Amino acid sequence: MSEIKSWAFWRAVAAEFVGMLLFIFIGLSAIIGKDATGSLENIAQEKIAQELKVALAFALAIATLAQSLGHVSGAHLNPAISLGLLVSCQISALRCLCYILAQMLGAVAASAILNVSKGQGFIIEFLATLQLVLCVIAVTDKRRSDVTGSAPLAIGLSVGLGHFAAISFTGCGINPARSFGPALIRSELKDHWVYWLGPMCGGIAAALIYDFLLCPRTQTFSRRR
Amino acid sequence: MSEIKSWAFWRAVAAEFVGMLLFIFIGLSAIIGKDATGSLENIAQEKIAQELKVALAFALAIATLAQSLGHVSGAHLNPAISLGLLVSCQISALRCLCYILAQMLGAVAASAILNVSKGQGFIIEFLATLQLVLCVIAVTDKRRSDVTGSAPLAIGLSVGLGHFAAISFTGCGINPARSFGPALIRSELKDHWVYWLGPMCGGIAAALIYDFLLCPRTQTFSRRR
Amino acid sequence: MSEIKSWAFWRAVAAEFVGMLLFIFIGLSAIIGKDATGSLENIAQEKIAQELKVALAFALAIATLAQSLGHVSGAHLNPAISLGLLVSCQISALRCLCYILAQMLGAVAASAILNVSKGQGFIIEFLATLQLVLCVIAVTDKRRSDVTGSAPLAIGLSVGLGHFAAISFTGCGINPARSFGPALIRSELKDHWVYWLGPMCGGIAAALIYDFLLCPRTQTFSRRR
Amino acid sequence: MSEIKSWAFWRAVAAEFVGMLLFIFIGLSAIIGKDATGSLENIAQEKIAQELKVALAFALAIATLAQSLGHVSGAHLNPAISLGLLVSCQISALRCLCYILAQMLGAVAASAILNVSKGQGFIIEFLATLQLVLCVIAVTDKRRSDVTGSAPLAIGLSVGLGHFAAISFTGCGINPARSFGPALIRSELKDHWVYWLGPMCGGIAAALIYDFLLCPRTQTFSRRR
Repeated sequence: MSEIKSWAFWRAVAAEFVGMLLFIFIGLSAIIGKDATGSLENIAQEKIAQELKVALAFALAIATLAQSLGHVSGAHLNPAISLGLLVSCQISALRCLCYILAQMLGAVAASAILNVSKGQGFIIEFLATLQLVLCVIAVTDKRRSDVTGSAPLAIGLSVGLGHFAAISFTGCGINPARSFGPALIRSELKDHWVYWLGPMCGGIAAALIYDFLLCPRTQTFSRRR
Repeated sequence: MSEIKSWAFWRAVAAEFVGMLLFIFIGLSAIIGKDATGSLENIAQEKIAQELKVALAFALAIATLAQSLGHVSGAHLNPAISLGLLVSCQISALRCLCYILAQMLGAVAASAILNVSKGQGFIIEFLATLQLVLCVIAVTDKRRSDVTGSAPLAIGLSVGLGHFAAISFTGCGINPARSFGPALIRSELKDHWVYWLGPMCGGIAAALIYDFLLCPRTQTFSRRR
Repeated sequence: MSEIKSWAFWRAVAAEFVGMLLFIFIGLSAIIGKDATGSLENIAQEKIAQELKVALAFALAIATLAQSLGHVSGAHLNPAISLGLLVSCQISALRCLCYILAQMLGAVAASAILNVSKGQGFIIEFLATLQLVLCVIAVTDKRRSDVTGSAPLAIGLSVGLGHFAAISFTGCGINPARSFGPALIRSELKDHWVYWLGPMCGGIAAALIYDFLLCPRTQTFSRRR
Repeated sequence: MSEIKSWAFWRAVAAEFVGMLLFIFIGLSAIIGKDATGSLENIAQEKIAQELKVALAFALAIATLAQSLGHVSGAHLNPAISLGLLVSCQISALRCLCYILAQMLGAVAASAILNVSKGQGFIIEFLATLQLVLCVIAVTDKRRSDVTGSAPLAIGLSVGLGHFAAISFTGCGINPARSFGPALIRSELKDHWVYWLGPMCGGIAAALIYDFLLCPRTQTFSRRR
């Protein structure tokens, strides 16, 4: 029972909550698409393409979040995985229980946010960029020794994930310069601010969540470069 | 002929059987889709999208199962590969023969289960989650030194694989919390138990198969954490 | 000019020829699909899905062949890459020239075979399995120290590649056990032999090409296991 | 402020500009497709397939460019990432500002080139091959120790990226031998020169940009082989 007294334990539970919130918000955004443009008809015509989109969105979501949160909580993000690891005697019953509760809470919170926001551009751009910058900061964290695969591929898949979530709502910015270039050339700068505000706030939030909540840094500034 | 007397040999043959059963069940599920909704018409309209779905499903199935079973049997899962490795003098004729028989048996078993179950939700959720939790436990097995790529990507692809198998039948749960969040917000909790029972049983079964059949653990509990 | 006298140089040129032949045969098979079923209409309706299929087929073809042949020739498989590496002073002008000639010859040979075979099942199953077993043998070759990514993922992508090439012609076997299971359960064993003969010959050919032509083994049998 | 005086700093800013130019040119090419063939109707019919294409194109673009430029500038290619890394105290405010300006300039330049070239074959073949050969040279650069994933996969994804950009305009050559084989067999050698000139110039340009601008080599020729 000693683990319950450690900050690392509660950071792990928080990671399961944050991870599940992002996972469900992004996954459901990819599933529902933008209602306003009659996408339900499109889904009927393009049933198999929609299956591909959803399968890839959930695959990339787990690949990205496991990369970003794996060293904090193990990134189970799934009660069946927590239970399997309990049966395999790799986590305690207490950790299994707290993880499952945090996962359920995160999933409910994401569903509620999605229900309320109804595809509002700022929230989607904010969360889609948050997961990207979180992935970048986590993958390039020099304190980690557990990043074994290709960091560029991990970050690329995170960009793909952002598109699956946001593309049918905002066309997917998650990158102000990418939105700025074509907008300037075509002189379409109306409502352009949302492609700066959403991603920039997402980038700041990701840095704060990682550096203060999930994986606090104790190094001095000069060591980090 | 000494290898036939070792447990490792028969564990490898069992791994080829289990792997082939999962491979064929999941692959065929992705191919046939749900008959009840007239998917055959959809396939006619979306021939190339269906080709993409099937190609990706089989690719992810081999990527996942080779990751999960490679250290047990080599994860051939294909008589042509077993024969090629025999010709290349990397396995004995006896191992080649036993592998091919186990592969054929696994393929027949999977086809029979699929034929009988007719897309029943529990079996699909059970097997789709089993392969995911098997992948998680195998990829994070600290006893292995042969996991060279990105574990998060491997697990993400396994999630994608589960979706290819289950999405047209059950919408793909394989994660009770992911099913719970939207169901609670929309108050659609009817038949919700199948999204808990199938995945949870799959998670338990994966842990038992890995820890007792394929790769028995001899460490004490404290060492495993 | 001394490199022209070495076996390694000519093995590299042969690897460029073999690699280009497989690359073009598989890529073009994915592009044209099976004419007999009126796929041209399908392509008109599914233009973007076709683009996805072709892009992924070529991407997986290079990923697989670079994995299989990279240690033999560098796996340029592209005159623009050979020229770029010459400009970057990483290969000699002679090697650049011989590679480009071998690449052009391989591309012409593949186009000619495809033109003559007109989608005949045996040739497609043979070549699609050949690239898979070549990938398996090359990726698991214990003499190599340059396989840095995930071997299971590399093999999975090779399976996906086989499907992109063969799926519209033969449904893609490239795995006799996978074809046998459903065929037995559905009692559809007519013409079943092609799903054994093509892949089995492909597996044998891959082992012979790798072990004798591209990367001759000098170890004794006992060391290879 | 000392970093502003180093060549490495300005090489990094140049890398952000070049990377952003390639990123936006390729991404937008994938989005717009070829106007002349009425692709807008296709996009209406294939909305979800188009979303898949765009999401994968941007994912592969970041995966490829981060692999090619990561060791030069960090390959942010996104103001939100630069800002997030500033908040995380990993880059200086000056670097953040210069990167964001270079990113915006690169995005505007790419949009302008695309607007002027209107899908002209040479420019697309040139830039699509340039990113491929840049990726090959960067990934196989023996001076680097930060290439952790699979180089063959990285190069394969770069080929896929080239196809997403070019396929609806030129059918995607980016490989003269691949274009030559079928053209010779079908005797379709008219306008064939563009499939040699574009990729060959792209290959040469990539070698020059990498070896002289981004990552100057100081070794002698004999050491490079």
